[in-house]
Amino acid sequence: MVIAVDAMGGDIPVHAPVEAAVRAANDFEQEIILVGNRDQVVTELDKHTFPKKLIEVVHSSETVGMDESPALSLRQKKDSSIRVAVNLLQEEKVDAVVSAGNTGASMATAKFVLKLISDIERPAIGTLMPSVNRNHPFVLLDIGANIDCKPSYLFQFALMGDAYARTMLKLENPRVALLNNGEEEGKGNQIVQDAFKLLERSTLNFLGNIEGKAMFQDQVDIVVCDGFVGNIALKVAEGTFDFVRSVLKQEIQNSWLAQIGSLAMRAPFQSLKDRADYSEVGGAPLLGINGVVIICHGNSKPHTIRNAILHARQCAELNLNDTISREVSENLSLLKEGVTDSTS
Amino acid sequence: MVIAVDAMGGDIPVHAPVEAAVRAANDFEQEIILVGNRDQVVTELDKHTFPKKLIEVVHSSETVGMDESPALSLRQKKDSSIRVAVNLLQEEKVDAVVSAGNTGASMATAKFVLKLISDIERPAIGTLMPSVNRNHPFVLLDIGANIDCKPSYLFQFALMGDAYARTMLKLENPRVALLNNGEEEGKGNQIVQDAFKLLERSTLNFLGNIEGKAMFQDQVDIVVCDGFVGNIALKVAEGTFDFVRSVLKQEIQNSWLAQIGSLAMRAPFQSLKDRADYSEVGGAPLLGINGVVIICHGNSKPHTIRNAILHARQCAELNLNDTISREVSENLSLLKEGVTDSTS
Repeated sequence: MVIAVDAMGGDIPVHAPVEAAVRAANDFEQEIILVGNRDQVVTELDKHTFPKKLIEVVHSSETVGMDESPALSLRQKKDSSIRVAVNLLQEEKVDAVVSAGNTGASMATAKFVLKLISDIERPAIGTLMPSVNRNHPFVLLDIGANIDCKPSYLFQFALMGDAYARTMLKLENPRVALLNNGEEEGKGNQIVQDAFKLLERSTLNFLGNIEGKAMFQDQVDIVVCDGFVGNIALKVAEGTFDFVRSVLKQEIQNSWLAQIGSLAMRAPFQSLKDRADYSEVGGAPLLGINGVVIICHGNSKPHTIRNAILHARQCAELNLNDTISREVSENLSLLKEGVTDSTS
Repeated sequence: MVIAVDAMGGDIPVHAPVEAAVRAANDFEQEIILVGNRDQVVTELDKHTFPKKLIEVVHSSETVGMDESPALSLRQKKDSSIRVAVNLLQEEKVDAVVSAGNTGASMATAKFVLKLISDIERPAIGTLMPSVNRNHPFVLLDIGANIDCKPSYLFQFALMGDAYARTMLKLENPRVALLNNGEEEGKGNQIVQDAFKLLERSTLNFLGNIEGKAMFQDQVDIVVCDGFVGNIALKVAEGTFDFVRSVLKQEIQNSWLAQIGSLAMRAPFQSLKDRADYSEVGGAPLLGINGVVIICHGNSKPHTIRNAILHARQCAELNLNDTISREVSENLSLLKEGVTDSTS
């Protein structure tokens, strides 16, 4: 099992991906190909100690900037680090790709080079979100790959999220719901309503609609929405955590009693932070393409990218995409019907 | 200044609205008309002490259930408590209406009886949300009145939110932003992109797009979105608070040290709760109709409805709707252009 890591991606290019690769090699003997500017990568690698045979460097002459147009970079930078990494996957020289680079470019490149899984119309980005049950996170998707969605896309996201929950979370019959502004059937915009009708006829364990409040209560395992809504849901949750942290900090500063209390509360606070912070899991899978590609936040630290490498290995080992393909084939006639309805 | 209170609305009909009215009468000498089943309301009133001259009861023979169809109840229940209350407002016998009843029914009734402010196409429900700056909440709208929106609606929501921030939050030049999945211009779906183009040409202090994370950082005063997205944003924020509370509770139970710490942290925790909980403010204004109608959660306690009565009085005293009308007229040609574009 070999993982290609985009060494030029992210806000701390070379430094963070190289350190992550070194840690993965040392911690769980992961074979890695670092893709990027050879001189820079080798210079960075020389700062570390690791089993030399586990890390190889493949040169690429170009880099996609964090704010570059995905479409343009795909067309014009054919020797970018992400492109070379994805090519290695397509040529079966590696088993998965990890990148903290420009998300749009990673997605466009993966889609172009690897193609979509048969009968999937759009890739989606999934993420794990915490629930009040320590051991039961849920999968939220799409969190930003697709802004304007058709009902058939939402149905496909549900199938992909279900496959991810079955393989990575080891759930036997994951509970699927649509994110909506009310629980009753008939809620939501037309697209969500039409997706509801497809989902209730599918092989999935579809529970119906769920509100943004209830999804944290361990009532569901997969929450499906379009990428616009998913991005806002994810960011609002992050913003609310930041708000809580910021307010508590302000309030604690005003009282010596609270300052002492907060010291005694250090363990619960740390635990809250750990449970809330799913970047621990390491990146988000790009679902629906022929190949395992894990995307990390641009600001990911080496620790997160290291975890993303492990995450990528697990997705590849557990044949996540085979499960997606099986679920697609089990729902094929409904899928085709959904696609026709959406385009008509 | 007289406020009509729907005595039959909410999960605790009669009891909660009557107690709220009594408190408002005792606390700030508010004149109130309680609308509902006379026998039930009088029986409930008899349990309380208050200046008799401040509270009057107007009988209504029907009640709209919390799950009833707004359209049907509007057509069939012409003597419902919400209908009679809104009629009193239309006849200028009261200055505002407060209801914790069926939100859809309150909205439909208000829109039907009172009509929309000239050149406003849809009413919106606004709510205050907390920011990290104790004294600077922001207005989020729409939070659920309009699921499918046109760009012109979003523009109108921005004008109404701006008027609300100017009058109720006493801001001179409120900062307006569109809730989006990225800050850059061109982000979001077509509707949001088109709304952006209207907003940047308006008289508003439009800052552009804001992400769900940044909106809590006191960077904006009004955050505009459609009712589907707004509902999800609001509920995700609530769900995240519940998650934090629940996790801390679990973690504290596991450690005697943390239990002691949490006692010393009681004041900051209470303060966080107060700052997060804008139900304190009392209800959400239904913006865009000719008249002041404040809507409360069905599960509102007497304290919240009492605050909503105060909120309603302030909206009426400060002539919120005059400010909305002025902002509409200042942007009239752009508004008409937006409406034409949206319908073409």
